[in-house]
Amino acid sequence: MTMSIRGYAAQSPTTPLAAHQFERRDPRANDVVIDILYCGVCHSDIHQARDEWGGSLYPMVPGHEIVGRVSSVGPEVTKFKVGDTVGVGCMVDSCQHCSSCNAGLEPYCVEGATWTYNGVDRHDKMPTFGGYSERIVVSDKFVVSISDKLDLKAAAPLLCAGITTWSPLRHWNIGKGSKIAVIGLGGLGHMGLKFAKAMGADVTLFTRSPGKEAEARRLGADHVVLSTDEKQMAAVSRQFEFILDTVPNPHDLNPYLTTLAVNGVICLVGQLQPLDPPVNAAQVLLGRRSISGSAIGGIAETQEMLDFCAEHNIVSDIEVIDIKNINAAYERVITSDVRYRFVIDMASLKAA
Amino acid sequence: MTMSIRGYAAQSPTTPLAAHQFERRDPRANDVVIDILYCGVCHSDIHQARDEWGGSLYPMVPGHEIVGRVSSVGPEVTKFKVGDTVGVGCMVDSCQHCSSCNAGLEPYCVEGATWTYNGVDRHDKMPTFGGYSERIVVSDKFVVSISDKLDLKAAAPLLCAGITTWSPLRHWNIGKGSKIAVIGLGGLGHMGLKFAKAMGADVTLFTRSPGKEAEARRLGADHVVLSTDEKQMAAVSRQFEFILDTVPNPHDLNPYLTTLAVNGVICLVGQLQPLDPPVNAAQVLLGRRSISGSAIGGIAETQEMLDFCAEHNIVSDIEVIDIKNINAAYERVITSDVRYRFVIDMASLKAA
Repeated sequence: MTMSIRGYAAQSPTTPLAAHQFERRDPRANDVVIDILYCGVCHSDIHQARDEWGGSLYPMVPGHEIVGRVSSVGPEVTKFKVGDTVGVGCMVDSCQHCSSCNAGLEPYCVEGATWTYNGVDRHDKMPTFGGYSERIVVSDKFVVSISDKLDLKAAAPLLCAGITTWSPLRHWNIGKGSKIAVIGLGGLGHMGLKFAKAMGADVTLFTRSPGKEAEARRLGADHVVLSTDEKQMAAVSRQFEFILDTVPNPHDLNPYLTTLAVNGVICLVGQLQPLDPPVNAAQVLLGRRSISGSAIGGIAETQEMLDFCAEHNIVSDIEVIDIKNINAAYERVITSDVRYRFVIDMASLKAA
Repeated sequence: MTMSIRGYAAQSPTTPLAAHQFERRDPRANDVVIDILYCGVCHSDIHQARDEWGGSLYPMVPGHEIVGRVSSVGPEVTKFKVGDTVGVGCMVDSCQHCSSCNAGLEPYCVEGATWTYNGVDRHDKMPTFGGYSERIVVSDKFVVSISDKLDLKAAAPLLCAGITTWSPLRHWNIGKGSKIAVIGLGGLGHMGLKFAKAMGADVTLFTRSPGKEAEARRLGADHVVLSTDEKQMAAVSRQFEFILDTVPNPHDLNPYLTTLAVNGVICLVGQLQPLDPPVNAAQVLLGRRSISGSAIGGIAETQEMLDFCAEHNIVSDIEVIDIKNINAAYERVITSDVRYRFVIDMASLKAA
């Protein structure tokens, strides 16, 4: 038994997304069935739909910034009930027994997490399909609660853009008195500014584009540094204990390394490519600096972030679209023409 | 007033080292005058004598692994007295008021430390000259005590090779239960093995050369992995919490990154060049791994290391040479033909 689901899918790397009917598994005893209200649009949706990382599985239903309402629960589910407002992020399962899973670090599951789409369920071997769809079936361990106090459509990007920036800020203990910087003002960067500011840090935005000062300050930046201006860069030499680098493409890390204090860390969250041009080891050794990275975040810390967001009324800045406009939205994501995240109103699927 | 000192110097990047008479400052109130017994030969002596890093000052008297006896002290010196056995490492001064100096991290002095040679004294602006000489004058804050229980000639390399490996192992809290690896079996690498083992870690040596197993085990390795053997490398995938990379030349870090566990750190101590081939960011992000580096160590931790060495009877494995053979020794250092450090018996200066 499976359930028939309506969604939007790419049928190949070169076909636009279009309406698509597909099967989801019959819920297992520990599954939660969620009617999807909103789904954010992540740049990685485009990378995968177009097979830019290789190994994409088709048909592909993207979407891993999912907010919805519980429509049914399996008999073993105790944490959620029908009607609850919940979220699902990038993962829907993991091995649950490795050292990473035991430490609440499911993204680093030694056996590999099960991704929300473009993956294969580790139990029944069915393909996984994401949130550009009317309904999803997810093991209760990978469902998180979302407060109805939040603007739910604007909460959707918290499930990926949010946790991806939250997790490293927490891991590196950013808080009151911390002096940190964020590189890039996009879907990830604008969340980095909001979180770092709410955590009490003194926050600098590095940007290559002049004219973003007012926006950056509105979002939480205390200072804005134009990274193309050598004088501005020299003025922040050795200043930061932490830099959150949200840039999705290869770029020169060396100028940023010089702005790290002794023991400072630059943490990459947006790119998976080789670090080209090469990093100068002298900049690392002579300041005991570190180049690190972080991938989304664990389920427990995702819940922690969502609770923090409810408490501090933090959501993403979004532009809501109908599902029929998804292909045009992809083009605008590619040219960074969105402030700062597209979210699909999934009610529009009925009309699509 | 200055004192005339006999030593060995390079007069230019291309001249062999030869006997040379030079001036040291008249001791200041907080200075210690040290009769040099032994001086280790560090690869960086060669780099600087030959101006391979640029900016070398000539004539240059190299040497920053110095062991000697105190022959006089200034009136403000309370920590040392005539006859004490002492050491001097890579630094002879620093600003003493920046955040790094206040934290005991003098190598990272914001104003720049004063190097033992190839530097300029920050008070009288005289050039600094190193340990390939009969006597040195050093501010008491940069002199460390050495136990006479140690074999003093074999203790000399502790002042650079020792502290350079000790400091990162301590900073990253290596101890009982830690699973770590050392890359490279030279002057630094052999000290890394000894220290990590004495700290209680489970220690693996990565080497590109077969046949080093017995030596590596004698020096402290529990396991030896041939890094050119893909099968051996796959067998240690995700194993290490810390890797001490002592290789002095650019090399591919990517195969080593895969052997780091989640949150693992690879710490570079031997190279100052660009990281070429480039590091793959995916290996960093998808394991929250870090690429870091460390430069020698602070004065307080140098003393801590020397005390640990006295307690555990740890010294370097060395080959003693006369100063007149220094140029031949340099050639052997370049071809890694030394187990594992040359130390100059400075008594040979009288006959040179």
